[in-house]
Amino acid sequence: MKLKASTAIAGALSTLLLATPLSAEALSQWSDGANKTAITEFVTSVTTEGSEHYLTAANRVAVFDNDGTLWTEKPAYTEVVFALSQVKAMAADHPEWQTQEPFSIILEKGLGSLREIGLRGAIVALTAVYAELDEEEFNTRAKAFLNSKHLKGERSNIDTTYAPMVELVNYLRANDFEIYIVSGGTNGFLRVLSETAYGVSPRNVIGSALATEVVAEGDNVTVKKLPKLAYMNNDETKVLNILRTIGSRPTIVVGNSDGDLPMISHALKGDGPHLGLLIQHDDETRESAYDRGAKEAIAAAAPEGDNFLLVSMMKDFASIWKP
Amino acid sequence: MKLKASTAIAGALSTLLLATPLSAEALSQWSDGANKTAITEFVTSVTTEGSEHYLTAANRVAVFDNDGTLWTEKPAYTEVVFALSQVKAMAADHPEWQTQEPFSIILEKGLGSLREIGLRGAIVALTAVYAELDEEEFNTRAKAFLNSKHLKGERSNIDTTYAPMVELVNYLRANDFEIYIVSGGTNGFLRVLSETAYGVSPRNVIGSALATEVVAEGDNVTVKKLPKLAYMNNDETKVLNILRTIGSRPTIVVGNSDGDLPMISHALKGDGPHLGLLIQHDDETRESAYDRGAKEAIAAAAPEGDNFLLVSMMKDFASIWKP
Repeated sequence: MKLKASTAIAGALSTLLLATPLSAEALSQWSDGANKTAITEFVTSVTTEGSEHYLTAANRVAVFDNDGTLWTEKPAYTEVVFALSQVKAMAADHPEWQTQEPFSIILEKGLGSLREIGLRGAIVALTAVYAELDEEEFNTRAKAFLNSKHLKGERSNIDTTYAPMVELVNYLRANDFEIYIVSGGTNGFLRVLSETAYGVSPRNVIGSALATEVVAEGDNVTVKKLPKLAYMNNDETKVLNILRTIGSRPTIVVGNSDGDLPMISHALKGDGPHLGLLIQHDDETRESAYDRGAKEAIAAAAPEGDNFLLVSMMKDFASIWKP
Repeated sequence: MKLKASTAIAGALSTLLLATPLSAEALSQWSDGANKTAITEFVTSVTTEGSEHYLTAANRVAVFDNDGTLWTEKPAYTEVVFALSQVKAMAADHPEWQTQEPFSIILEKGLGSLREIGLRGAIVALTAVYAELDEEEFNTRAKAFLNSKHLKGERSNIDTTYAPMVELVNYLRANDFEIYIVSGGTNGFLRVLSETAYGVSPRNVIGSALATEVVAEGDNVTVKKLPKLAYMNNDETKVLNILRTIGSRPTIVVGNSDGDLPMISHALKGDGPHLGLLIQHDDETRESAYDRGAKEAIAAAAPEGDNFLLVSMMKDFASIWKP
């Protein structure tokens, strides 16, 4: 219930006067086609008073995965690239890393180490460097990294968002959806970028959590970050954390990988109107076509029904990147 | 960033025109005195552009404990009374409860069992009955209970809120604070009452969580409630869950017991303006004076400084209950 009367009246008026043309125009970065039509028709149906599927603004919630859904995850998860860069930046204070895996491999091979150490090794490094940085220092370094050039060199990391997806976030927000980011990235990193990249409050971030130890002695309460994850927010854990934090199945759930399918499937099985979107990386020319092999596996596990859309970046995205 | 332009302009105008008189008038359920003045002066200082302590609306967050802070917790936690009532209601389906503790004691002695089974036994019973009820059934029963008469008989359970505290919540919301309930009560129970009692979205609830098991098989994702708590949201756990969910120290933290002191102390140690309030149950005539004995212990552990206020229900509350 975040609207005040004047805004609510203005919103109602603009809905009356402009609903369909505005909705269609709002997704100008999307190619005309069945998916764009399905999205705008769904949003119109849940926002039109008197419609069978009408939802009050208080009941409109959309959740988005981040990596590969809202921004690029290639050549590696952006947060992992950041964490590896910090291993290098902090190596002088850690002579022991020269002989200690996975740090020694990272220092020798940089991003090339990922094939060897895997995501598991990357998380060991990530949690080790995060546990050493207080909040202010972490935020300063993360912001500097986000404003630095992405590995592919054409834009800064913070600008590797997909224009049609940022447009979709804005379109849903304009239709009074509350937006959450539900990502495998860590809360700390996501909170540095959510407002700048998507206009999403740092409080509407549901990510992986670093383990912490809270000690209260009298009025001295200290929170110590530990070099490990409390949980990795992926697969079933996304469902669990959505239910704990939001408390109900979101109206719209958007992801791009098998790790997003549980939260999509769970939402679609709920009562009332729900829409699930799975973004497919199938555009070899403009981005890359890396999930083609997984397509059949995903299709087999994906929910059936006309409220689940497979979105093709090649066919449905009029543009990929911010201009 | 939840304000639209028209609301922001209206807000700015009303601040310019009405700031001090409106602020003072807004807490009409509070007695004039140092605490009321400190609260309104604090809010004025963080909401007045150009003030040394000015915070943008996006950075104004207030968290409130529930039991004993926003509504009564006597003669027992309202949620515990609800849970025990459900043991009775479901006993016919559980012949084994007749001989199994703590159920047998609850069935024999009702609320009187609490002295014997303690909070620990009550939680065993609560989690057992909660795990059996699906969301719809749980919500129906909880709503019926909330609308039924409180044990003291004068009003329904949902109306056992403290008028000055509900007024404070509304006053902060009108000053663009985002409000969270941070309670030892369970998420499920709090979400049934937060909007009705306080105008707080069920998504802005941080409570104790029932343990769950999420199983995904293909597109069939099931969430099974287990008869135990994942965590009890009290003491240091309140700090942990505030940092996970909100991600930063709230501007204003309000509680009433030693279980609230860690979150108050932690917030007050942060940079920037913070205010902590501890509600003292010292009004034997209009409510009860049950925390008198603990006052010294709390005072010893409580944070020092002029941004921590001990609020006396006897002296600071012009009224206690809703009219």
